[in-house]
Amino acid sequence: MGELEVLAFTPTAEQYAWTFGGRAPIARIPPGTVLEVYTEDCFAGRVRSASDLVSEVCEFPFLNPQTGPFYVEGAEPGDTVAVHFVSIEPARDWGASTTVPLFGALTSTHATATLQPPLPERVWIWDLDLERRLCRFAALDSDATVDLPLEPMHGTVGVAPANLEVRSALVPDAFGGNMDTPEMRAGVTCYLGVNVEGALVSLGDGHARQGEGETCGVAVETAMNSVIVVDLIKGVPTPWPRLESDDYLMSTGSARPLEDAFRIAQHDLLRWVSAECGLSELDAYQLLTQAVESPLANVCDTNYTSVAKVRKAYLPGLRSQYDAHARLREQARQYLAAR
Amino acid sequence: MGELEVLAFTPTAEQYAWTFGGRAPIARIPPGTVLEVYTEDCFAGRVRSASDLVSEVCEFPFLNPQTGPFYVEGAEPGDTVAVHFVSIEPARDWGASTTVPLFGALTSTHATATLQPPLPERVWIWDLDLERRLCRFAALDSDATVDLPLEPMHGTVGVAPANLEVRSALVPDAFGGNMDTPEMRAGVTCYLGVNVEGALVSLGDGHARQGEGETCGVAVETAMNSVIVVDLIKGVPTPWPRLESDDYLMSTGSARPLEDAFRIAQHDLLRWVSAECGLSELDAYQLLTQAVESPLANVCDTNYTSVAKVRKAYLPGLRSQYDAHARLREQARQYLAAR
Amino acid sequence: MGELEVLAFTPTAEQYAWTFGGRAPIARIPPGTVLEVYTEDCFAGRVRSASDLVSEVCEFPFLNPQTGPFYVEGAEPGDTVAVHFVSIEPARDWGASTTVPLFGALTSTHATATLQPPLPERVWIWDLDLERRLCRFAALDSDATVDLPLEPMHGTVGVAPANLEVRSALVPDAFGGNMDTPEMRAGVTCYLGVNVEGALVSLGDGHARQGEGETCGVAVETAMNSVIVVDLIKGVPTPWPRLESDDYLMSTGSARPLEDAFRIAQHDLLRWVSAECGLSELDAYQLLTQAVESPLANVCDTNYTSVAKVRKAYLPGLRSQYDAHARLREQARQYLAAR
Amino acid sequence: MGELEVLAFTPTAEQYAWTFGGRAPIARIPPGTVLEVYTEDCFAGRVRSASDLVSEVCEFPFLNPQTGPFYVEGAEPGDTVAVHFVSIEPARDWGASTTVPLFGALTSTHATATLQPPLPERVWIWDLDLERRLCRFAALDSDATVDLPLEPMHGTVGVAPANLEVRSALVPDAFGGNMDTPEMRAGVTCYLGVNVEGALVSLGDGHARQGEGETCGVAVETAMNSVIVVDLIKGVPTPWPRLESDDYLMSTGSARPLEDAFRIAQHDLLRWVSAECGLSELDAYQLLTQAVESPLANVCDTNYTSVAKVRKAYLPGLRSQYDAHARLREQARQYLAAR
Repeated sequence: MGELEVLAFTPTAEQYAWTFGGRAPIARIPPGTVLEVYTEDCFAGRVRSASDLVSEVCEFPFLNPQTGPFYVEGAEPGDTVAVHFVSIEPARDWGASTTVPLFGALTSTHATATLQPPLPERVWIWDLDLERRLCRFAALDSDATVDLPLEPMHGTVGVAPANLEVRSALVPDAFGGNMDTPEMRAGVTCYLGVNVEGALVSLGDGHARQGEGETCGVAVETAMNSVIVVDLIKGVPTPWPRLESDDYLMSTGSARPLEDAFRIAQHDLLRWVSAECGLSELDAYQLLTQAVESPLANVCDTNYTSVAKVRKAYLPGLRSQYDAHARLREQARQYLAAR
Repeated sequence: MGELEVLAFTPTAEQYAWTFGGRAPIARIPPGTVLEVYTEDCFAGRVRSASDLVSEVCEFPFLNPQTGPFYVEGAEPGDTVAVHFVSIEPARDWGASTTVPLFGALTSTHATATLQPPLPERVWIWDLDLERRLCRFAALDSDATVDLPLEPMHGTVGVAPANLEVRSALVPDAFGGNMDTPEMRAGVTCYLGVNVEGALVSLGDGHARQGEGETCGVAVETAMNSVIVVDLIKGVPTPWPRLESDDYLMSTGSARPLEDAFRIAQHDLLRWVSAECGLSELDAYQLLTQAVESPLANVCDTNYTSVAKVRKAYLPGLRSQYDAHARLREQARQYLAAR
Repeated sequence: MGELEVLAFTPTAEQYAWTFGGRAPIARIPPGTVLEVYTEDCFAGRVRSASDLVSEVCEFPFLNPQTGPFYVEGAEPGDTVAVHFVSIEPARDWGASTTVPLFGALTSTHATATLQPPLPERVWIWDLDLERRLCRFAALDSDATVDLPLEPMHGTVGVAPANLEVRSALVPDAFGGNMDTPEMRAGVTCYLGVNVEGALVSLGDGHARQGEGETCGVAVETAMNSVIVVDLIKGVPTPWPRLESDDYLMSTGSARPLEDAFRIAQHDLLRWVSAECGLSELDAYQLLTQAVESPLANVCDTNYTSVAKVRKAYLPGLRSQYDAHARLREQARQYLAAR
Repeated sequence: MGELEVLAFTPTAEQYAWTFGGRAPIARIPPGTVLEVYTEDCFAGRVRSASDLVSEVCEFPFLNPQTGPFYVEGAEPGDTVAVHFVSIEPARDWGASTTVPLFGALTSTHATATLQPPLPERVWIWDLDLERRLCRFAALDSDATVDLPLEPMHGTVGVAPANLEVRSALVPDAFGGNMDTPEMRAGVTCYLGVNVEGALVSLGDGHARQGEGETCGVAVETAMNSVIVVDLIKGVPTPWPRLESDDYLMSTGSARPLEDAFRIAQHDLLRWVSAECGLSELDAYQLLTQAVESPLANVCDTNYTSVAKVRKAYLPGLRSQYDAHARLREQARQYLAAR
């Protein structure tokens, strides 16, 4: 494999991080390193059957374990780290989803506080057919079953936050974190602005698949064996997490109320497109108004996450500010060919 | 064409409706009627060049003219009207989009009131190439141009509201209205709950195309020649506007803040799927959480609109509560063949 | 009483209005008229005992009956009507409050849609001691009782809306309506911008008292005998309902989310104070930031209502743009002296 | 002074804390200790004249310095610390307020992102007359001046957060922090739930006065000499910061959107009153609906803060769950008498 630096890492139970920031790095890596990592599911692996209720088997705040943080050598505030997802593969042939009391979009919560009792707590175990690339839903209250496509993704990836903060791994914000967007799939590069020396990249929260908005608050949660390349882009700041695929530029916004998450994502994509294409802000506003796709990511977490995405083919004169995605795609191909 | 009742209607300037409710019907139609209608653009046709600023050429409240209302014979509160879009074709070879002072998602507004001055008022004229099915964006502040696909749709369709109300045609709510979703395209059936005798269906606000969220508040606005079939489903109520295509069931929610629009749409789709598939509500909650797509429609109007959509192929044991879409598709084929 | 024009009006059951707009005036009055009116409670008088559940005895949309509309002679769009509350007296020695399914701040609703069942429906009958000026709360589930001060007010007062609309009497918006603020008490003048000829003023929804925010959605509802003076201020527009007492200037904002209601009220008060005191907008921003009181009105209705109020004593060089409150106070004194 | 333990503490520049959590205690104190502390203003003392713009003289994230944290001996998760404010006195005869770019309620912000330029940056220096208890506003753009009452308070008081988090001192949340409520004045006891051993109490952000909502985002900021008593209530958890004065019980909620902050505060006060008075939840819901006062605290910070307060005189059969306020008032009297 020549020049590729490869590091394999599977955390021990004590090595998981439960926060972004506030944790010593588990390894130092030079930019361009390929990481082969294992990530545990958001339940820390404790929900294994229909009788494993989150409120009984999980122990707050030990939820959403992160693999990391990785210290990226040379990364300083004002730089950007690029995390390219080479592959994301379920490490088990099943995933779990649940209702969680006072959590989710169609229930009152601790913030949207009502006097109604919480919804019943239930667990769905989904069979994953890794060969046929399917997840099987089996209803609890009837015989119905259906197969949905397996579309593995990471709900959580991020860096240490700014402002001296340490944030729970359940929170999405400008540092990334628990954005829960199905766009975070293999083939995609995620750009994250660096807030502290070394950036301190972590990831976790594998989903066999999820719908847009993660309505009940919990996806098809599973452990993952994932391969990422972590690169460094010096001197380019990134205000909110951005994603790039072969076909799309995407920005994310995480905030409440949901219209603010929308505004952040659209505003950031507009600034990005304006800079890449040399368009005035008002011209970029007009073009995006007609061209943007706006799928929701999560409407259940501490902050809601909205995605704004636009086809590169719709962008006149697109240059690449980051100049990283194509290179990382090539690196990924090289890695996969050598494997 | 045998049994198809066809009515062609092009309003005179005085015949446009500016509200849902509060207006005598312009025609009475039996269920199943095919309507060939002309709709004017949201500017009432007054923005025709880059110098036609909305604040100068338009006259409030005479915005978003609606073609209708049509009185559907036999329609009573508790029923549903099905509006099937057979075809939606631009009636001109250009469309117009603008910024409007204190309107749009990336500006303060009369409700999100700030002390900052409004954004500059600008007009973009888009060329529509009806043969190549393209809309051409031309930047105002540089030479950039780009072609986007022509994807004609209606921003506004609805019935008279409940509760004795009359609402501006700029408002989306449970009666439909100005939802501004790109899903309202040819081939789709829109189900609307009837609130008053005759339902009083109107439509307008043609868009050559729009992005999801209609970020600046204005799509590529143009006049349309559209063909719809209006049908009646007796005894089935519809709480919020629903759409059905060959592949998808879709619910809409219109409210503020945006998370409430999301909740309404997801909740309504859940109830719909639960009834259609015989799933318990919690099973439907789980299935939709993993299967739903959640594109935004508008985040600029008086109420924001969120769409929840699920592939029919992902729904086990799907029956059809409305039993209308397939029939209307067939009617549309018949009509198109006879034309 | 010399120059005072006095009109007494008690509606028959058929004469109540259920909307703002959309209704022929019940009387034409010259500016300055004293109106002695009877208003029915928000339940249309149908909740009279603990067993009268709203869902059983009330008939939608026949809720919140309004006394009016009164056509104010000479009122045109761009003017302001001043409604001065001379006295507000309960017409009965009891009031009623209830929970209403899926309505209120501490329950999910049709917009904040969840899968939880609604709260139980209960009715509290409050004894009103008109002499001692007390309302007696008696708990339903224990023996507890407590007396709160009687502080009569009108939850609803408004004019016909703009934009050709007709709105349910349950809605608060720029035209006034169901603002549900305890500030709407005797001694206060309410300024409302005129949208249609004659303004079409109505009022209703008497409360023996209510807390700020009207948390469960329902105050101590009762019929009222109220005296108001309706005056006309030509050529002065009023964008949002404003109130003036001997000591305070107050603006209201009605919108969702609640921060927008707050922004509207603060922004409007800032503009008002800036104009009255000859302060720059930024100076008024600074002064109000330190001087404003911001009690909530309702956080349960279709729009939420926020109040921004500032002591006149804190306003340097205050002139009176409307020049009406002092005059109306004097007229009220004259009327009361003559009674 | 007999049994009173008194500790005086003025931080050096290096000793200020910029976060809640993440900082070693500056002192360990037994419950009941009287603390005489100096707090610096939110600008870290760097805004001293009209030309000291925040964007030029302040250094992010070194804003809102906190005095503390104090480790309360014996405090464990599940307990409550009671912070009683004995006296709050400006340490200077002037205070400063400013606009801050993209911060405040009547401007777009980083979350409510728009394309408009920020408001101008201005500084107002307020003279404080400590004898006459007045703050003098002087307009920048005209000659207007006015005196408002001096009403000193602390914008920020809190403990280390739960969930392993470290939060910026600019954030209000369940751990307290930057709530910015004028209710935090001398004579009041603030109850804070303990999340980590020792609780780690800090305070700062003195305001000579502020309006409700802190509209422009900045109060009349000044350094303070404050005296507090810090007490410990074992075995009683407190979910959200609560305040008690001689006349009122108060709960706070900090969240976005603002209606969630409202819901949290009202829900928490309801639970508190229900427990104190032996009322069922629905009876407490009804009583509070009619009795509650709902002033806003801030509508500008990372989370908005809403206060729900009810007169003790309106609460039938009130016992005191915390049993601390009366005792602390007595301790304060003792301390003040001995001084």
